[in-house]
Amino acid sequence: MKVQQMTRLERIAALVAFTTLAACGGRNSEQNGGGGAGSDVLALMQTRGLSEQDVTAALKTYTPTGKHDEYYTFASGGHGGNLIVIGVPSMRILKYIGVFTPEPWQGFGYGDESGDVLTQGNRDGLTITWGDMHHPAFSETGGEYDGKYIFVNDKCNPRVAVINLSDFVTQQIVSSQLIASEHGSTFVTPDTDYVIETSQYPTPLGGVYAPIEQWNEKYRGAMIFWKFDKQKGRIVPAESFAIELPPYMQDLADCGKKASDGWVFCNSIDTERAYGGILEGKPPLESGSSQNDMDYLHCINWRQAEQVAKAGKTETIAGMRVIRMQTAIDEGLLAFVPEPKSPHGCDVTPDGTGVVVGGKLDTHTTVFDVAKIAAQMKEKKYVGKDPYGVPILDFKGSIFGQCEIGLGPLHTVFDDKGFAYTSVFIETVVAKWSLKDLKTVQKIDTHYNIGHLVTAEGDTVSPDGKYLIAMNKWSIDRFSPVGPLLPQNFQLIDISGDSMQLLYDMPLPLGEPHNAQMIKADKIKPIDVYAIGHNPATHEIDPNMTVAGKERIERKADGVHVYMTAVRSHFTPDIVRVKEGDKVFLHVTSVEQARDATHGLAIGGQNINVSLEPGKHCNIEFVAGKAGVFPFYCTEFCSALHLEMAGYLLVEPK
Amino acid sequence: MKVQQMTRLERIAALVAFTTLAACGGRNSEQNGGGGAGSDVLALMQTRGLSEQDVTAALKTYTPTGKHDEYYTFASGGHGGNLIVIGVPSMRILKYIGVFTPEPWQGFGYGDESGDVLTQGNRDGLTITWGDMHHPAFSETGGEYDGKYIFVNDKCNPRVAVINLSDFVTQQIVSSQLIASEHGSTFVTPDTDYVIETSQYPTPLGGVYAPIEQWNEKYRGAMIFWKFDKQKGRIVPAESFAIELPPYMQDLADCGKKASDGWVFCNSIDTERAYGGILEGKPPLESGSSQNDMDYLHCINWRQAEQVAKAGKTETIAGMRVIRMQTAIDEGLLAFVPEPKSPHGCDVTPDGTGVVVGGKLDTHTTVFDVAKIAAQMKEKKYVGKDPYGVPILDFKGSIFGQCEIGLGPLHTVFDDKGFAYTSVFIETVVAKWSLKDLKTVQKIDTHYNIGHLVTAEGDTVSPDGKYLIAMNKWSIDRFSPVGPLLPQNFQLIDISGDSMQLLYDMPLPLGEPHNAQMIKADKIKPIDVYAIGHNPATHEIDPNMTVAGKERIERKADGVHVYMTAVRSHFTPDIVRVKEGDKVFLHVTSVEQARDATHGLAIGGQNINVSLEPGKHCNIEFVAGKAGVFPFYCTEFCSALHLEMAGYLLVEPK
Repeated sequence: MKVQQMTRLERIAALVAFTTLAACGGRNSEQNGGGGAGSDVLALMQTRGLSEQDVTAALKTYTPTGKHDEYYTFASGGHGGNLIVIGVPSMRILKYIGVFTPEPWQGFGYGDESGDVLTQGNRDGLTITWGDMHHPAFSETGGEYDGKYIFVNDKCNPRVAVINLSDFVTQQIVSSQLIASEHGSTFVTPDTDYVIETSQYPTPLGGVYAPIEQWNEKYRGAMIFWKFDKQKGRIVPAESFAIELPPYMQDLADCGKKASDGWVFCNSIDTERAYGGILEGKPPLESGSSQNDMDYLHCINWRQAEQVAKAGKTETIAGMRVIRMQTAIDEGLLAFVPEPKSPHGCDVTPDGTGVVVGGKLDTHTTVFDVAKIAAQMKEKKYVGKDPYGVPILDFKGSIFGQCEIGLGPLHTVFDDKGFAYTSVFIETVVAKWSLKDLKTVQKIDTHYNIGHLVTAEGDTVSPDGKYLIAMNKWSIDRFSPVGPLLPQNFQLIDISGDSMQLLYDMPLPLGEPHNAQMIKADKIKPIDVYAIGHNPATHEIDPNMTVAGKERIERKADGVHVYMTAVRSHFTPDIVRVKEGDKVFLHVTSVEQARDATHGLAIGGQNINVSLEPGKHCNIEFVAGKAGVFPFYCTEFCSALHLEMAGYLLVEPK
Repeated sequence: MKVQQMTRLERIAALVAFTTLAACGGRNSEQNGGGGAGSDVLALMQTRGLSEQDVTAALKTYTPTGKHDEYYTFASGGHGGNLIVIGVPSMRILKYIGVFTPEPWQGFGYGDESGDVLTQGNRDGLTITWGDMHHPAFSETGGEYDGKYIFVNDKCNPRVAVINLSDFVTQQIVSSQLIASEHGSTFVTPDTDYVIETSQYPTPLGGVYAPIEQWNEKYRGAMIFWKFDKQKGRIVPAESFAIELPPYMQDLADCGKKASDGWVFCNSIDTERAYGGILEGKPPLESGSSQNDMDYLHCINWRQAEQVAKAGKTETIAGMRVIRMQTAIDEGLLAFVPEPKSPHGCDVTPDGTGVVVGGKLDTHTTVFDVAKIAAQMKEKKYVGKDPYGVPILDFKGSIFGQCEIGLGPLHTVFDDKGFAYTSVFIETVVAKWSLKDLKTVQKIDTHYNIGHLVTAEGDTVSPDGKYLIAMNKWSIDRFSPVGPLLPQNFQLIDISGDSMQLLYDMPLPLGEPHNAQMIKADKIKPIDVYAIGHNPATHEIDPNMTVAGKERIERKADGVHVYMTAVRSHFTPDIVRVKEGDKVFLHVTSVEQARDATHGLAIGGQNINVSLEPGKHCNIEFVAGKAGVFPFYCTEFCSALHLEMAGYLLVEPK
């Protein structure tokens, strides 16, 4: 039966047939009585208070057992410090990936080498055990998401993490002491040559102290270009560089693409250079930084900057090669364009010709014209300079135009039909508008206080349209109450038709997502199992891997080495005898190869829990500091005899 | 229009009208074209591959924007160490509550007093930063969930936590060094006099060392009765006691109710007293512990035990009053009944007359008859003793009967119509059977490897029926792949009709739930905001709270005290000047009272992030150990000028 070949009458007839079937409980109709499961559609609509639109929305999102979603959305976890993977359109959360915060279910940071990844992220000797993640970015090839890696940032302790999408595991964290906070991160160049991280709150570069009264002279911003090695899947700090910027608060950035390939654009707030001081008689930052009518869109030619860095025209600060501001000015790779007051979003159009900026205290989106900006910079056609000598371009001579949107435009995303969608915070709507004629065509309410928004493949050179998610900061009354701390609300909106339709409200149970990226499901191709002995930390077969029959305990000069296997339903060895004070090395290999046959290994009293997915090998080190009897056991319910998958660490007194 | 008053023909006519309306896109039909959003139900069924049953399931679970769920399910997070709150029937996760694992979004363990709750859970001086949570239990009044508190356990480092459902915050963690692991926890007595925690892997009591070869003589199990003070919402360790048990592996427990009030029942495995030793030539525990045909159901009269403890017939070990095994035997408060091999579930029926046990290597559920057990114990009618002198009752004389279920019965839950539902692990089904005539009436497939299962209000004296959740340990191919570590799968099943119907597959994105409890939504009544200055750690107005206009910085003998307020969109003070090495005390009050107007406070470089829900006060202590300039800012997107809600900690060099 094909819908398109049916007449209207036939369709209604078929529908009645279907729903009548449903009313009888479908295939199990013989077992069904008159109640519950046998209720028909109409009765359900009434019982559950569903409108016709709700029925459509339910059927557009419900994803039956065993069927997969069309898209993955990867949303930042905010100050939860983890990355959230969501299926679209079902809006089911598929995974929280531990990134900046230790997470024991994944065994992330609880005894094995994953802890070394977290330790990489320590700053200046201090252990940092959380992060404030804002903006994820997929690795790209030719301006398209390639599904291989995803990068995320930590605003609080400026760091960038690399997550490998072959196993959904955090692989690397990098940080530079050059800056002390960030926000405009992560954004990637169209072939992922660089991952961009931009400071937010100005500080003296390199982590040194200077009185805040020396703000204008000694406080600075910076944009870091982290070099990414696509083959190795690692950021290479030694090949990375930064550009010094004035002590404005740099904000979101976006990389040029196609027509604007080679450029990066970045907003700024607080060009007033206010820094608060309420108790000291100054205005709060929120008003001190909102005095000027315009702030500055930073326009940076990164390909040129790359050459300048290669030519050695840098100064090394806190281990980072820095192109000084004066050098950037002299080389003509940095210019400012006035932009609407206190801007937030900065989004390059799919064809790369425009940059859309929403001034959050404005009622317009402004579309900057990259060709005009580039031409003026080439011709050195400036209308002035900022206090640091950075050239300023003419506002009107740099824009394509403005679109009347509503109060508080923030971020803009794109579809496949030439429309842009802007989140409007104060009005709390998504505004759909035409990039071509800068006219708003529809607004849809959001609940409540929309921040970022995302469309399918929206930051690529070829967005898909179809779905949009409004990322609302408040949920208030949307969900069953859970105490004073409420979830946020992701609202899934169907943008495939002429008119936007709300499909689904999704509470965020952990973390405060800022931005997200939505990718076609078939671009994500994770492995099902590791090869036996594979260590995810190195992505190589571990030299300490063990196979069945070769398990052993060896006392060496540095301690007791235990070569252990895990298989349903035992660890071998299952009794480990050491002396109080011994250093213990557990080299553990899962010899499973069935998908989902994951084990865990937890040891009482030692704060250790590792996750052993099929084939995985990991190495655990600890000191058996206290005499006693410590059970260890499998923490993932693996089999009928899972509870019996246990053993004993016996620590004999000295 | 009322469904019940309509004829069948009228219903079909109305349905066609509704679905035709839906086909035109409902209220927005004028704006809709022929595509996407305007598709009709039939087309959606075809496009998305939905069966008639899927349509029914979608409409039974879809919960439109702003509508709330009927039930809350609280599921343990397994070795994630957190508690998962889920709406039913939408199966949306509403919150992850940090319990044993620090969680920065909630600010749990990241600088304020919440860290002291985690520290309470340290064992023997060692910091433990995770937990393996298995079995949540609501506080009860008269055998009904009262919605005030929920208790959870940590299997690995035996601990019990109390979560206050007024604010969904973990309030207390208790632990006893008496035991070194547990599993049969938490279960509460019908008026929450006690929270029960039972050891799993035997160890010498009190955390001392003994060679494993002295298992029979020196290794022991124990059941701890943690006294709960309902008024204060706290466990009182000094009023708690334990009962020493033989070195079998005690497993799940359940408290008697109504007919069996005053009793507690607990399974055991490994009555063989095997403890592995594979490399030492012994069989793995999984086979060593599966030799006997029967294990022992432990029957304990806790009201009698309470009197024995009150009478001082205890010995104090590691600070815990312990009723020695011989005392328990002498007092006649402990007896064993043979139970099917390697049992797992142990579930008291709603009327309290029966205890259902599933022997996981058996094909039956066995219903023990509490009246028969009690009568035999009263009459001292024993058929033998175990090696420790514990009296053994006759199996056949202690049961009501057995029900043929299938291979691998685990746990059993109940509905409001006299049916029991048992998870059958190896067969991977839910079996519905009649408690009255012990006949299986239906089985429904689960995907895959079901562990626990839960029904609405299922562990009370008056279950609701309606919904059942199958908690499946593996998901394999059910969801879009996310690497080798896969989510688990909660399957929502409609049990309101005669026949069970699968409604929804829900991936668990973080943690490995074991058990859950499902409560009527209207029993949960959390507060919306705190009174200004309320400290959730004490549930009192904090003596250090501050109001607007009274903010100040005071240098005292012990360090720099900062009395700070937070309000949209600034902290006062926003500049904090200290000297390198100063101890800093931040006393922070949110003076917000609007629901959901939450702020966060993160300080760069100090590993601090607290959550400031409206009205909340918290106190933060840290040492400014390094000179430099450290921005602090609000981590919860609170307003249009949220990014400007920031300040500076200036640490001047010595």
